[in-house]
Amino acid sequence: MTGVIEARLKDLGVELPDAAAPAANYVPFHLSGNQLFVSGQLPLIAGGPDFKGKLGADIEIETAQQAARACAINILAQAKAALGDLDRITQILRLGAFVNSAPDFTDHPKVVNGASDFLVEVLGDKGRHTRFAVGVAALPLGVSVEIDALLAVE
Amino acid sequence: MTGVIEARLKDLGVELPDAAAPAANYVPFHLSGNQLFVSGQLPLIAGGPDFKGKLGADIEIETAQQAARACAINILAQAKAALGDLDRITQILRLGAFVNSAPDFTDHPKVVNGASDFLVEVLGDKGRHTRFAVGVAALPLGVSVEIDALLAVE
Amino acid sequence: MTGVIEARLKDLGVELPDAAAPAANYVPFHLSGNQLFVSGQLPLIAGGPDFKGKLGADIEIETAQQAARACAINILAQAKAALGDLDRITQILRLGAFVNSAPDFTDHPKVVNGASDFLVEVLGDKGRHTRFAVGVAALPLGVSVEIDALLAVE
Repeated sequence: MTGVIEARLKDLGVELPDAAAPAANYVPFHLSGNQLFVSGQLPLIAGGPDFKGKLGADIEIETAQQAARACAINILAQAKAALGDLDRITQILRLGAFVNSAPDFTDHPKVVNGASDFLVEVLGDKGRHTRFAVGVAALPLGVSVEIDALLAVE
Repeated sequence: MTGVIEARLKDLGVELPDAAAPAANYVPFHLSGNQLFVSGQLPLIAGGPDFKGKLGADIEIETAQQAARACAINILAQAKAALGDLDRITQILRLGAFVNSAPDFTDHPKVVNGASDFLVEVLGDKGRHTRFAVGVAALPLGVSVEIDALLAVE
Repeated sequence: MTGVIEARLKDLGVELPDAAAPAANYVPFHLSGNQLFVSGQLPLIAGGPDFKGKLGADIEIETAQQAARACAINILAQAKAALGDLDRITQILRLGAFVNSAPDFTDHPKVVNGASDFLVEVLGDKGRHTRFAVGVAALPLGVSVEIDALLAVE
C-alpha cells in the first residue's frame, strides 16, 4: 500500500529514484524531533540527463528548471528513505537553492521555480516553502543547481 | 496600539514597507513551533533605490551596507506580517547573508554589518544573531545583497 | 576533568583555540532549546597558516582540506564556549560549507571532506552530519573555506 503523496507522484508519472548515498563522511538526512534535515541534493538521477552547465553561459533556463525539479525529486527520495511514508511530511519548511551562475545572470528565481512548482504540485499547501535562491560561482561535478531542504514531519 | 519594537522603529524614522509577496510558488515565511523562517529578502523597498551592483566592481561598501539594512527591514516586515506584533520576537537566531561579489572582494562582513547593526539598534540583545557572510557570483535582479533569517518567537 | 570528546581531541593532538570573538554586532553562537547555532567559521587559528586562496586558481585541494578541518576545529571551539562540555553534543545536524572557487572548479565535496572526516574522527556517529558544499565567488579576508553549523545538544 502506498500513501496519498506516493499515489500523487504516480499520477504525475514520477518514479522516485533510490536515495543517493553520500560519497563521504556525511549523511543524506537527519531526523531531529519533528524536523528532517536533507543534505544538498544534486540534479543527478540514474538514467537521466546530467544537467551540467552554468546559467548565463552554457545551459538554458528551461533546462535548468528541469535540473531544479530533479533536485526536488531527490529531496523526496531522501525523505522517503528517512520516513518510510511521504504522508508523514507536514510541511516543506525551507529550501536553500544554489544556481551555478555566470556573473551577469539574474534569473535565479525562475530556475528555482522548477523545484518549487514541483513540490506544490505533489504536496499541495504542504509543499509551499520558504526559500533563498542565489547564484554561485561553481557547483560539485559542474551541475547547474544544488538544493538542500528542511521539512517538518510527524 | 503599537508595541515596543514598532515604537523603536518609529523613533529611528523607519517605516516598515508592506511585506513583499513572493513571485512564485513559495511563501515569505513559515511559523513552525517557536521558529519563524523568513525567505531570502532582497534590498528592494518601494520608492527606494534599487541597490543593484557587484561589490568590488560597481557598488561601494557604504551603499551596499544600506542594501543590507534594507534586507533587514524587509525581514522585519515579513515578521510583522507573520506575527502581528514584533514584540513576539524573542531572538534573531540566524542570518544567511549573500553578497554579490567580484572574485577579489573580501570585505563581506563590513557589508553585512549594515543589517546586523540595524537589527541590534532596533531589537537590542534580541537582535544579536549568528550569521554567515559569503560572496556569491550573482543575485536575483542583480541586487547587491540577499539575506534570509530564522527567528525565535513566542 | 575533561570529557570523552576532549580526551579524544587530545589523543588526536588537537588543541582547541580560544573561541574567536565576532568582529561586529553578531554572536558566535546561540543556544535555542536543544539546538546550537554556530556562525560561519573561517579557517583562521592563531599561529596557524592563513589558508587564503581560491580553489582552481591558487590553492591546492589538499591544503584546502586542512582549511576545512580548521573551520571544523573552530566550530568545536565555539561549541565548547557555548556548552562548557563537548560531551553535551548529541549530533552535528548540519554543516553549510562555502568553498572559494574559480568558475570551473568542481571538487568542492573533496575539500569539505576535510571538515567532515575530522568531525567523525572526533565525535564518531555523533559527528555525522547533513551538509551542502558549494563554490562561492569570494570569501571574507580571501580565505578558501567558510563553514557554519547546527548542532543538537543536551
